[in-house]
Amino acid sequence: MNQADGRAASIPVAILGPTGYTGLELIELLARHPGMHVAYLASAREKAPRIDDEFPRLRGVLPAEVAQCRPIDHDAIAKAARLAFLALPHEAAMHHTPPLLQRGVKVIDLSAAYRLRDAKVYEQYYGHAHTDPEGLRLAVYGLPELFREQIRGATLVANPGCYPTAAALALHPLLKAGVIEPTGIIVNAASGASGAGREAKAHLTVVEAGDNFSAYGIGVHRHQPEIIQTLHLTHTQMGSPAGSGIAPLLFVPHLLPVERGILETIYATPTSPHLDTARVMNVLHAAYDGKEPFVIVRSDAPTLRDVQKTNRVHINARVVGGRVVIVAAIDNLIKGASGQAIQNANLMLGSREDAGL
Amino acid sequence: MNQADGRAASIPVAILGPTGYTGLELIELLARHPGMHVAYLASAREKAPRIDDEFPRLRGVLPAEVAQCRPIDHDAIAKAARLAFLALPHEAAMHHTPPLLQRGVKVIDLSAAYRLRDAKVYEQYYGHAHTDPEGLRLAVYGLPELFREQIRGATLVANPGCYPTAAALALHPLLKAGVIEPTGIIVNAASGASGAGREAKAHLTVVEAGDNFSAYGIGVHRHQPEIIQTLHLTHTQMGSPAGSGIAPLLFVPHLLPVERGILETIYATPTSPHLDTARVMNVLHAAYDGKEPFVIVRSDAPTLRDVQKTNRVHINARVVGGRVVIVAAIDNLIKGASGQAIQNANLMLGSREDAGL
Amino acid sequence: MNQADGRAASIPVAILGPTGYTGLELIELLARHPGMHVAYLASAREKAPRIDDEFPRLRGVLPAEVAQCRPIDHDAIAKAARLAFLALPHEAAMHHTPPLLQRGVKVIDLSAAYRLRDAKVYEQYYGHAHTDPEGLRLAVYGLPELFREQIRGATLVANPGCYPTAAALALHPLLKAGVIEPTGIIVNAASGASGAGREAKAHLTVVEAGDNFSAYGIGVHRHQPEIIQTLHLTHTQMGSPAGSGIAPLLFVPHLLPVERGILETIYATPTSPHLDTARVMNVLHAAYDGKEPFVIVRSDAPTLRDVQKTNRVHINARVVGGRVVIVAAIDNLIKGASGQAIQNANLMLGSREDAGL
Amino acid sequence: MNQADGRAASIPVAILGPTGYTGLELIELLARHPGMHVAYLASAREKAPRIDDEFPRLRGVLPAEVAQCRPIDHDAIAKAARLAFLALPHEAAMHHTPPLLQRGVKVIDLSAAYRLRDAKVYEQYYGHAHTDPEGLRLAVYGLPELFREQIRGATLVANPGCYPTAAALALHPLLKAGVIEPTGIIVNAASGASGAGREAKAHLTVVEAGDNFSAYGIGVHRHQPEIIQTLHLTHTQMGSPAGSGIAPLLFVPHLLPVERGILETIYATPTSPHLDTARVMNVLHAAYDGKEPFVIVRSDAPTLRDVQKTNRVHINARVVGGRVVIVAAIDNLIKGASGQAIQNANLMLGSREDAGL
Repeated sequence: MNQADGRAASIPVAILGPTGYTGLELIELLARHPGMHVAYLASAREKAPRIDDEFPRLRGVLPAEVAQCRPIDHDAIAKAARLAFLALPHEAAMHHTPPLLQRGVKVIDLSAAYRLRDAKVYEQYYGHAHTDPEGLRLAVYGLPELFREQIRGATLVANPGCYPTAAALALHPLLKAGVIEPTGIIVNAASGASGAGREAKAHLTVVEAGDNFSAYGIGVHRHQPEIIQTLHLTHTQMGSPAGSGIAPLLFVPHLLPVERGILETIYATPTSPHLDTARVMNVLHAAYDGKEPFVIVRSDAPTLRDVQKTNRVHINARVVGGRVVIVAAIDNLIKGASGQAIQNANLMLGSREDAGL
Repeated sequence: MNQADGRAASIPVAILGPTGYTGLELIELLARHPGMHVAYLASAREKAPRIDDEFPRLRGVLPAEVAQCRPIDHDAIAKAARLAFLALPHEAAMHHTPPLLQRGVKVIDLSAAYRLRDAKVYEQYYGHAHTDPEGLRLAVYGLPELFREQIRGATLVANPGCYPTAAALALHPLLKAGVIEPTGIIVNAASGASGAGREAKAHLTVVEAGDNFSAYGIGVHRHQPEIIQTLHLTHTQMGSPAGSGIAPLLFVPHLLPVERGILETIYATPTSPHLDTARVMNVLHAAYDGKEPFVIVRSDAPTLRDVQKTNRVHINARVVGGRVVIVAAIDNLIKGASGQAIQNANLMLGSREDAGL
Repeated sequence: MNQADGRAASIPVAILGPTGYTGLELIELLARHPGMHVAYLASAREKAPRIDDEFPRLRGVLPAEVAQCRPIDHDAIAKAARLAFLALPHEAAMHHTPPLLQRGVKVIDLSAAYRLRDAKVYEQYYGHAHTDPEGLRLAVYGLPELFREQIRGATLVANPGCYPTAAALALHPLLKAGVIEPTGIIVNAASGASGAGREAKAHLTVVEAGDNFSAYGIGVHRHQPEIIQTLHLTHTQMGSPAGSGIAPLLFVPHLLPVERGILETIYATPTSPHLDTARVMNVLHAAYDGKEPFVIVRSDAPTLRDVQKTNRVHINARVVGGRVVIVAAIDNLIKGASGQAIQNANLMLGSREDAGL
Repeated sequence: MNQADGRAASIPVAILGPTGYTGLELIELLARHPGMHVAYLASAREKAPRIDDEFPRLRGVLPAEVAQCRPIDHDAIAKAARLAFLALPHEAAMHHTPPLLQRGVKVIDLSAAYRLRDAKVYEQYYGHAHTDPEGLRLAVYGLPELFREQIRGATLVANPGCYPTAAALALHPLLKAGVIEPTGIIVNAASGASGAGREAKAHLTVVEAGDNFSAYGIGVHRHQPEIIQTLHLTHTQMGSPAGSGIAPLLFVPHLLPVERGILETIYATPTSPHLDTARVMNVLHAAYDGKEPFVIVRSDAPTLRDVQKTNRVHINARVVGGRVVIVAAIDNLIKGASGQAIQNANLMLGSREDAGL
């Protein structure tokens, strides 16, 4: 549990912005990684905290000198680490990525800064200018199941959003096999509250959100263009997120009264009236079984509990009432964020893809 | 809170099957009803319990002689009560309804026994024969907002299912106004665990269901034909539940880790590409504002918390991404069961419709 | 549910500070009160909100002209209402109480401003000066089961804290009967998160508090002197809260991952080694049965669920392992705040004590 | 995550009774253990299930031939595994332990069968005869922080109960240092619902237990004599659990509406009126800091969230109101069961004590 030993053979990495939930998750996952360890925690706060004061559950996990956060000093980070995980706000990520890359540090950015290829779409959805077009050109979208080879060679990886990870892995094989229409898809999703970040918000308290459930960002959520872009990249018939007219895909997220986990119930139109459940499941099995260690195709619908605290996505699909209904589940903090970041780091640094996961 | 006083002017009612959650809810609602009181609790158990031993929160609510459940004795019930709420299993409801009606007791049945008009559809979805065709002929579907006048004159009311209540109230005005297509509707719904009843079930424990979320009965749930029937009754273009081919409506429920509440996110296709949110909201406002005390049309999406422990349904709708997206919320135990039953009883007995609610 | 009718015979009341949880609870309880109605909502906010925008679940509950909050205008309040519920911060309560009393408006203060009789103890625990000594002299502690007659004649009632309500009702009869020692009492308590108020706080989010449990304010909580004072008032052998040396009572609260409810597990020392469970229960039964409609003495330990959304306290006691162990449960927002406030209002205005509860 | 590789150097172990929550936890912990792997899952069910059908979250974790449970065949287990974790009912544990020991398989028993040294006390609390006195003689109580050396040499380890683990680690150093009295201790504890096992029970559903909190087994819980015995073993002034008269320690557990975690708030009497918080904390720091990787002594009170999904116990203590108040937290399924079992296995098999934890 303590990282003290065997560090010789282990690759040092840095985390920028470790005081959020994805930072916490990265630290806990890396604490049991056999070939990678946290060497530098960089905080943007004026007074850098000890991370185990921020998160008391980390007491005893990191050596004292690492647990003490330090400033975001690019030279010091480059000296201490071969790869940096950025768990920063979008704007800060665009600010710190170029100097790190210049110093030879590989970057996995967990913000949305480099996810959307079209800076205009980015600016429309995120409300501020994109300040690093060069980074945008370099960045590889870090969904290993779809872009594994590009990730291996990347210096900058845009770690996908949580909702897009589940949606893309569920829809991609079915679109590729041509069994569902690339239009009129509805992604009805629900996420645990950790997806909203660690900041205090009145609507997220136990009283307000604890026994509650609600839809938000209906049809206007930032992850909608990201899902569409990913499917468009892999399936050209899918309209692009910048396109006008009827959206090829409607995304409606909901807030669950749980800490973690995403469940997506996805509705698509079959391309043939003869499509049946067996055929749809065959497509998924053929795409993933024996090839993808983190994708489980199953004959019954998954639940949040099946994937919480794991890096796996569970997928089920069926044809019913004239629709293809797909249910996909992930842990938003792991396969939807920090676990996927480590999966990407493993690829970029030549480790086993499932090391530490 | 104690019913001891003012009972002279108050109408005595009976509850058959009070040991489930709808029974508990009926007792608590009736305890503060100004014009109705529980006079007889009838249990099918071999040894009839005291209801406040079953539900300790009822201690002090009912007089001792009423708190002690008695057998289901039709003559005794007819002597003690003018109306009976049946919170029994479906088969038991079909068994006890005819003798109560014969003895002049009005019946509100909270089971599904009399909801589906077509005995064949009933038998297909509930897996047993319908044994009371005469009751089926007499029964009025107890959704006051759609069938108020029939309910006033009814002797037997089939209290609607929880999911169908929200779906029908959300969709009916839009179908009637012709702004959405009567085909291809998707009702994506989520309910608290009380909807599954009070029996011990392994998948409903705090450990299994507590931080969980899952889809179930995808496209095959018993409430799907009930929703379709209600919309078909009021809008003939909607296909009937007994019909073959593409379902006019697909219903996909989910289980929430909360005690109570239903949220439905409904997707429909506009009949015109020019339909906008303002028009859709106008249709809803015109249908309900100032007319229906228990229907709240609002410009933002409702949450479970807005309706829990109330008899109200909250509805919001918008046009986005080429779809009409409607969000409707109710308390499954109140507007979705016991509150609606009391609303029906008020109509049948000539009380104010909102008395005690 | 709507207050529109029968208001002629009904007493108008005001709520100052209705945008917190006790305000919401007061509004919902008063909406079904047969003899009292909300006539004025007074908010200290610069721009007074509509209360049903603050709490969407109140839509349809209050007439529009009442739902719109108004400024805290003492003359206008005195014109509109005979009694005011103050759900304000402590300092604001001390500021607004005198002018309301001067204008003949009875006041029930739900803050702690008038609970502790000794201004020095108040200032020690609340960290600011007590600015209304005259009010302190007038105020009656609003625990009806112990101070019913004084409350009937009072113009200013200090509504008790939530924890002290349960503790005092559990301990008072046992101290009075002399079966437990007035020293060394331990009150181990747990409360739902609504007790912490409605303000956004990072440690109260679903992620931080949702699956959590923790002790806080160990031995230094503000309710400790309030509990001691109440028992001291009724049982002179109990040390006073201002006393020095060993505390007569140690209070340790915990935060539960639920919205509402308080459970207290209380440990006391028997005055005799021969004390047994039967004797302890007899003392409780003799004190409450048939006398107190809101106190239920029971032979098994109560749970939160038994009292949530009720104005009742459930109490059980036993002798085990050489200790008297008492378990008491209330709803912190009802018997621990707004329900008790209405019980007090009923006494002060000559209504039935249980009206609307 | 998949165990396929590196198994050569890894020690094969068996789990008997893997279909409960401690079984699930063992499998997930062992899946990332660097030096131990599951080689045999033995189920007592007539038709042995695939463990990943029982727990879908285990899909992809174990090789198919291991995931398929097999009968409890002592010879086959002895052939396949060097150590067996028994996650069986108490009686079954006493039945299967002797034949496994005879075949040279080391046993860690997670039931209570071998925890209480005195068969008479065992029979009094567990309600059935103890059928393996020889095992009772051999068994070492598996709390590594107190009995590390005996565990290293043991062939049979009785894995401690969840509540006793936290209580013993909190109280032992303070008793040993003589700063608290060995009488009159109160252990007020609260546990997540997984402590009640995986069987369907009506009082454990989301509806009944979800927003609830309750005391149970007040002063008569089976873990009370186990706590007393452990403290008696290490501190002779503490009365034995078989003793008569006033209990040296009163244990009162509560049920929390969460999956996992135990928080104990412990009240003890100082041996000196001059005892202060600094002295008490010094005793704890001296006992654990730098010596025990899984015991964290901290200056503020821990919460459940600080220890969930870890093998650590967090302890805080203070002197207030004339009492020593200690707060200790663990994960009941890890340090309170399966994690501690692996810690014991590491000691028994010569691995690093914290391997895989």
